[in-house]
Amino acid sequence: MLNFWIDYPSIEQRLKTVCSIIEERVTVRNKEIQDVLVDFTYSGGKMLRPALFFLFADLGEPIDERNDQLTKIAASLEILHMATLIHDDIIDDSPLRRGRITVQAKYGKDIAVYTGDLLFTQFFELLIESMNGSHFLATNAQAMKRLLLGELDQMHTRYNIDESIADYLQSINGKTAELFWLACIEGAHFGGLDLENQERAGEIGRNIGIAFQVFDDILDYTADSGTLKKPVLEDLAQGVYTLPLLFAKEQNPAAFESYLSKKSELTTEEATEVAELVRRYHGVEKATDFAVSYTEKALADIELLPNTPSKEKIRELTQLLLQRNY
Amino acid sequence: MLNFWIDYPSIEQRLKTVCSIIEERVTVRNKEIQDVLVDFTYSGGKMLRPALFFLFADLGEPIDERNDQLTKIAASLEILHMATLIHDDIIDDSPLRRGRITVQAKYGKDIAVYTGDLLFTQFFELLIESMNGSHFLATNAQAMKRLLLGELDQMHTRYNIDESIADYLQSINGKTAELFWLACIEGAHFGGLDLENQERAGEIGRNIGIAFQVFDDILDYTADSGTLKKPVLEDLAQGVYTLPLLFAKEQNPAAFESYLSKKSELTTEEATEVAELVRRYHGVEKATDFAVSYTEKALADIELLPNTPSKEKIRELTQLLLQRNY
Repeated sequence: MLNFWIDYPSIEQRLKTVCSIIEERVTVRNKEIQDVLVDFTYSGGKMLRPALFFLFADLGEPIDERNDQLTKIAASLEILHMATLIHDDIIDDSPLRRGRITVQAKYGKDIAVYTGDLLFTQFFELLIESMNGSHFLATNAQAMKRLLLGELDQMHTRYNIDESIADYLQSINGKTAELFWLACIEGAHFGGLDLENQERAGEIGRNIGIAFQVFDDILDYTADSGTLKKPVLEDLAQGVYTLPLLFAKEQNPAAFESYLSKKSELTTEEATEVAELVRRYHGVEKATDFAVSYTEKALADIELLPNTPSKEKIRELTQLLLQRNY
Repeated sequence: MLNFWIDYPSIEQRLKTVCSIIEERVTVRNKEIQDVLVDFTYSGGKMLRPALFFLFADLGEPIDERNDQLTKIAASLEILHMATLIHDDIIDDSPLRRGRITVQAKYGKDIAVYTGDLLFTQFFELLIESMNGSHFLATNAQAMKRLLLGELDQMHTRYNIDESIADYLQSINGKTAELFWLACIEGAHFGGLDLENQERAGEIGRNIGIAFQVFDDILDYTADSGTLKKPVLEDLAQGVYTLPLLFAKEQNPAAFESYLSKKSELTTEEATEVAELVRRYHGVEKATDFAVSYTEKALADIELLPNTPSKEKIRELTQLLLQRNY
């Protein structure tokens, strides 16, 4: 996972510390859960959210005494992300995550429910230790709520043939972009940036998050399980209709209707035919253009950030995310 | 539910306010979840935890300006309780809770996972609004963690024929007594009591909680589904071996072994035979004595609380809980 950060040694080093904090925090009496959590911590996530947090915090003046606080906040972001992944996999009934068998597939839904819950408590514990008294505590609780509401939106629109692009955007804005927003605005805040730059940071995070999710959704239609490490057309099979499909469906609703009306009865072969339609009606191209436009918004805002070495790294990372070919 | 409090009008009134706060907080876009939550809020819980919180807070000097803060904290306790109930029912695969169909049985595990998660965020949101900057934030996060670890302990010992009384106590200490401890110590703290009385309040709460859980576990062996509103021998069928069984098993391990080794294959008829054995080997009596001893410890400590009208109510309530015949 951390190979991704090999050219950013200071980030890589701090992400390693974040990993140790997480490992230390997920110590529980139950050995089974303990192993699940440690395994999951080191299972190949890129730790984008803590990395963005550090990059934005680095825009401010470095203050050594703040390091411990910053590391805990960075860890809280990753732990919240881990908790939602584990609970998502219950909903999705996903067999794989990050190329490995999911907690619920391996240990059952029961373990997965409590493991996620336990991570939520660690999230709050880290926040309370690092920022008790700060108004950012409320910001975190609200972000967590919006994140869950985004998940609920997605669940609610499953197999919904009438799902609109607006519904999709509302959902990804909550389930993905909210946490990117939080990572960046929180980094800027605890890095000591002024209010204008804090808000700018949040906006950049939100736009990166939307682009990131759209690119991820595109991969469901283009990647194979070799490079992506997850079964392709998984979203489609689970009734999660993402942007490539929604754009394509706009062009010829009737062509999709006969497939989508089968809901969970859609066969693998039919799913492949739907994917073919998505490409034929330029769904992938349009979704790509859409994601690029959000990345460009982010890049334009990045130019307005204070001129520090970290700004250059934020720009590079954003451009890298645009490619999504790693 | 609130009929239970009819002789305590000031508690009843405040519990109604707690209900409105909860109802207001569980407002979500998704109508289905919204209905689940509102229904669950009014579904017949006695709201013991917020009530204990108010009773202990009332031991201090009344300060009107604090009312809003106290109501929010009381609501946070009930919301945390609701969240854990909803997630427990997923683990237990329970069809009924409080005489009504459970969230997971009615809407599926998916909805139940996110509904519980959403309640966790409301728990923290209320805490942050009511006590940001207080060291009780950390106390709450730790209590939530211990509560979950207690649930995990219970799950871990399922169908474990070697489960000891110590294992059982460790589990109920976390999954039930912790939240009673929190309700009482937090009440005493925010009611303005001195440190000694705060700790005493917590201890009283913990002992009440243990007695409460043991009485509840006894009902699994004695009540019928008419009075208890839940299927009897449910714990046994789910491999949760509680105190009456553990005490009885100590007397004649071999008599139980042939049954318990069947684990989830135990038939309803066999479960009835196990219950018969539990009674024959005085499991119910011994567990009752055990619970009474904890209630008595609580009652002895209650005598040491400051002499205010609320102290008398706490004593009455504790004696009432001892009977568990409502």
